[in-house]
Amino acid sequence: NLFGWFWQLLITKLGEDGIFLAVLGILVAVISFAQDYVVFQLNLARIYLYDLAHDPTSKYFAWISIPVLLVLFSSGFVHLVAPQAIGSGIPEMKTILRGVILKEYLSFRTFFAKCVGLTATLGAGMPLGKEGPLVHIASIVATLMSKLVTSLDGIYENESRKTEMLAAACAVGVSCCFGAPIGGVLYSIEVTSVFFAIRNYWRGFFSAVFGALTFRLLAYWYENHGTITAIFKTNFPHELPYDPQELVIYALIGVTCGLFGATFVFCHRRYVLFMRKSKRLNRFLQQNRFIYPFVISLAITSIYFPLGTGQFIASRLTSRQQVRSLFSNFTWGKDNLTVSEEMIVNEWRSDYSSIYFNLVTFIVTTFFLTIAASTLPVPSGCFITIFKMGAGYGRLVGELVALWFPEGIRVGSYVSQILPGGYSIVGAAAFPAGVTHSISICVVISEMTGQIKHLVPILVAVLASNVVARLLQPSLYESIIMIKKLPYLPDILPSRTQAYHVYVEDFMVRDVKYIWKGITFKELRDLLKEGVKIRAFPIVDSPNNMILLGSIQRWELLKVLDLHIGRERRLQVAAQWQ
Amino acid sequence: NLFGWFWQLLITKLGEDGIFLAVLGILVAVISFAQDYVVFQLNLARIYLYDLAHDPTSKYFAWISIPVLLVLFSSGFVHLVAPQAIGSGIPEMKTILRGVILKEYLSFRTFFAKCVGLTATLGAGMPLGKEGPLVHIASIVATLMSKLVTSLDGIYENESRKTEMLAAACAVGVSCCFGAPIGGVLYSIEVTSVFFAIRNYWRGFFSAVFGALTFRLLAYWYENHGTITAIFKTNFPHELPYDPQELVIYALIGVTCGLFGATFVFCHRRYVLFMRKSKRLNRFLQQNRFIYPFVISLAITSIYFPLGTGQFIASRLTSRQQVRSLFSNFTWGKDNLTVSEEMIVNEWRSDYSSIYFNLVTFIVTTFFLTIAASTLPVPSGCFITIFKMGAGYGRLVGELVALWFPEGIRVGSYVSQILPGGYSIVGAAAFPAGVTHSISICVVISEMTGQIKHLVPILVAVLASNVVARLLQPSLYESIIMIKKLPYLPDILPSRTQAYHVYVEDFMVRDVKYIWKGITFKELRDLLKEGVKIRAFPIVDSPNNMILLGSIQRWELLKVLDLHIGRERRLQVAAQWQ
Repeated sequence: NLFGWFWQLLITKLGEDGIFLAVLGILVAVISFAQDYVVFQLNLARIYLYDLAHDPTSKYFAWISIPVLLVLFSSGFVHLVAPQAIGSGIPEMKTILRGVILKEYLSFRTFFAKCVGLTATLGAGMPLGKEGPLVHIASIVATLMSKLVTSLDGIYENESRKTEMLAAACAVGVSCCFGAPIGGVLYSIEVTSVFFAIRNYWRGFFSAVFGALTFRLLAYWYENHGTITAIFKTNFPHELPYDPQELVIYALIGVTCGLFGATFVFCHRRYVLFMRKSKRLNRFLQQNRFIYPFVISLAITSIYFPLGTGQFIASRLTSRQQVRSLFSNFTWGKDNLTVSEEMIVNEWRSDYSSIYFNLVTFIVTTFFLTIAASTLPVPSGCFITIFKMGAGYGRLVGELVALWFPEGIRVGSYVSQILPGGYSIVGAAAFPAGVTHSISICVVISEMTGQIKHLVPILVAVLASNVVARLLQPSLYESIIMIKKLPYLPDILPSRTQAYHVYVEDFMVRDVKYIWKGITFKELRDLLKEGVKIRAFPIVDSPNNMILLGSIQRWELLKVLDLHIGRERRLQVAAQWQ
Repeated sequence: NLFGWFWQLLITKLGEDGIFLAVLGILVAVISFAQDYVVFQLNLARIYLYDLAHDPTSKYFAWISIPVLLVLFSSGFVHLVAPQAIGSGIPEMKTILRGVILKEYLSFRTFFAKCVGLTATLGAGMPLGKEGPLVHIASIVATLMSKLVTSLDGIYENESRKTEMLAAACAVGVSCCFGAPIGGVLYSIEVTSVFFAIRNYWRGFFSAVFGALTFRLLAYWYENHGTITAIFKTNFPHELPYDPQELVIYALIGVTCGLFGATFVFCHRRYVLFMRKSKRLNRFLQQNRFIYPFVISLAITSIYFPLGTGQFIASRLTSRQQVRSLFSNFTWGKDNLTVSEEMIVNEWRSDYSSIYFNLVTFIVTTFFLTIAASTLPVPSGCFITIFKMGAGYGRLVGELVALWFPEGIRVGSYVSQILPGGYSIVGAAAFPAGVTHSISICVVISEMTGQIKHLVPILVAVLASNVVARLLQPSLYESIIMIKKLPYLPDILPSRTQAYHVYVEDFMVRDVKYIWKGITFKELRDLLKEGVKIRAFPIVDSPNNMILLGSIQRWELLKVLDLHIGRERRLQVAAQWQ
């Protein structure tokens, strides 16, 4: 019958891969949602404890106790179970997708450590995000599922298929973090791939849609929303979101965000390298593993203490609440605020300071605390904090413009009101664009806010930010790859016309050290002595035809040599002769 | 000084390419806008003529005269100036980007013919679009600009750079057609590329943003809108655009759209092959070039005659107006329509028929007339007509669902109204997805409507449509490539796991006919006789080492042979001996 035939066709053509991708998406969404849930509960517990205390001192200890303990737990747990789980994961996935095999990086132990460690870190309220780690987690899920299927079936053992599935997993990771399927796919392609095979495009989408759908449906069922919604839903008017003249300001936001982004990458790298440079400090910290996490988390949490400096940086709000309030559609600086508007603004001003001062301190402290927090030996991403810094910066510019043009911009008979929330969105897109050198952040932010009204300003700012940042610094991911010294082939110069005139012969090594079949021991020994810095030697058929047979690493070669002419072997031979 | 240094850096790093891409985007946008303007005026002229006439007969002639003349002019003009301008352009760009050189396809003559011919065809109100042709036009603009710069500078002669610029041009073409920069870039990548280099991602975006910005700014300045707007702006409420239960219906729309999409591709190919099959008819039509355009355009225009069958297919509206009314945010079938709503609905019902009947006839006639019109020997795309068929289908389903649940869908205390306009958007995305096998249509439609509320339903429907359509038929572009017999390497099976077990040895030719340096004339003659169907021979160093030196085409080989041992040469030699 027709249906049976069609079903058969579906299974054969879409078959295993389709089911695999759907399950992958659903699993990662459930993990992501569960993490969010636990983090939410941990936050509640902390606020509860804080409210329970009465005098400032006990309030302070209530405020710091849970976070510091969680960070210590996280760093200890990760260190014991799988140190590979430390950090973001996107730089590592970037190198893995380029064909490098990082040992133990996609194992179950790492998965377990990353999930638990990440939840604890986020629950501690550190200025860190879950996007990068979720990409890593999704990749491990994909790898483990592949192994499972292979053990059942045996058809899945294929190198290129593995890469395809990992690419899809990266897309799922980003999608499930923000509930942004399209943006997730594009962002993951942009930050992890060099060349992308269009025929795999659907894989990422298929999996990401299942993931994002599950993620949003869980929120819908659990939180009893009316429908599936965007995570940072905005409410800008349909008509006149902005006047074309404002595009100039948006472009300027883009340029400055590009500068800040490059500065962020620069400061991050400098700080990490500085911490690594001092050998004595380093040895001390490695022997006392808990000192550094303790100091940093204590410092961060203390700065966030709401009765102290925290009141200038809206520290009573979670990252999501901060972003939601920054995106809110009203001018904070206006006089006649409604009660609900007043509630939002009150978090962003104190008895001693205005919103402008608070926004500046918010941006500056987040900037430095993010850098400090990202060096903690725990699973961590920093996308969301970069995102909220951008949102804060955009809100600041928007409020200043609104202060400057309180009546809005008049063009002929139209009057275009200034919407500082729109500026906030533009900043939130432009700053991560400068840090990560990505363009598809435009799509991510449209999906996150559920509105696409500001797409043109966002695009203008993101492109400007990209151009400026690319001129000055590598992207954060590439910078981390450099810091970690991961094997990585740098990109071809993307834009210079000169790139077309660089040939391999311009930088290739002409005097190659190689080993051939009939090489004598003396020649081999000289080779090993001469090229002490070479870590692997090519093996060719003969010096005449130079047909490449393979390569051998120095330590492998030394091991083989030792096996054949080492002390033990010589003793053996001597024993035979006796 | 700092600014000077920065500017120098900007020029060196972004330099020529950046300026090139910006100019490309702006030029194409101006061309696209100018075409739209002329088409709009031609439509006005036609309506004016139609309103001038009083009795039905003269009204009929007023209605048909301009379109038929325009189509005849277009086909004649294109035939005389550059026959390469006929058709869409996307299939050809697909092959060009795969490295094939299509002669005269990117010349100035073709550009001129395509621009004029396309404007005339669209002005005639044929059920055709401008998306494909605009991609072609943008590619020609890029090629001509490259040539210009090369003649000035000489640095631009590079094959890979050319491909990169063409890929960016394709993105600009789509972007300027719909004012959708992101969707344009993604769609163009998806339909034209096989492998995509991420480092060129920014090129497409850069150029597309300039294009889309210019395109929208022109509309803003010229049409005096309040701000930059989306071309099919929708107005759905912020809250509750749909209930998650409706996702099932959306998925069903996707599946049926996939089926219809495959049917469309199938019917289109069958019709073209049928028209080509009858040799006598073919010869007759080629000798009388104007007969076929005349008959087809007359038939289409007559069917569209508003006093006749046209009243059942909303033919008084242009394609854009049709889409705008299909996307409108109210239920057509409800009782208490406002005056402005009544005006919209009146175009979609007649004294003799309801909206349901009209929607069905609209879909069916558009289906067949699009196929007929796309075989006209004029520049033409068919994206927008496929798009509006999908919108009509979605609206039909939406109206039926609204009829079924007049009170909306109740879940607990929430009541979710049915928004047939939302269904229309989903249909408008799913049907083109089935025809073109693209996923990024989701982004295109979000940008076109300026709303992203329905993203999840759209994604679900688009994926379902893709899956179904891919099982049954190639995409329309691939189908046209097959019809035109363009050189084209088919895609690797995208989803079957079996694809990983197909090796080159499974289908490679083992008994290769080749030519080597020392081949004798006899051997060469035998080779040419044996392999009469082989159009090109590989040349190797010697039959022993089989090192490939290059290849020679049969006709080249025959020409060379003739030069050396042909009649003239022999006469020459004979003359020497005499």
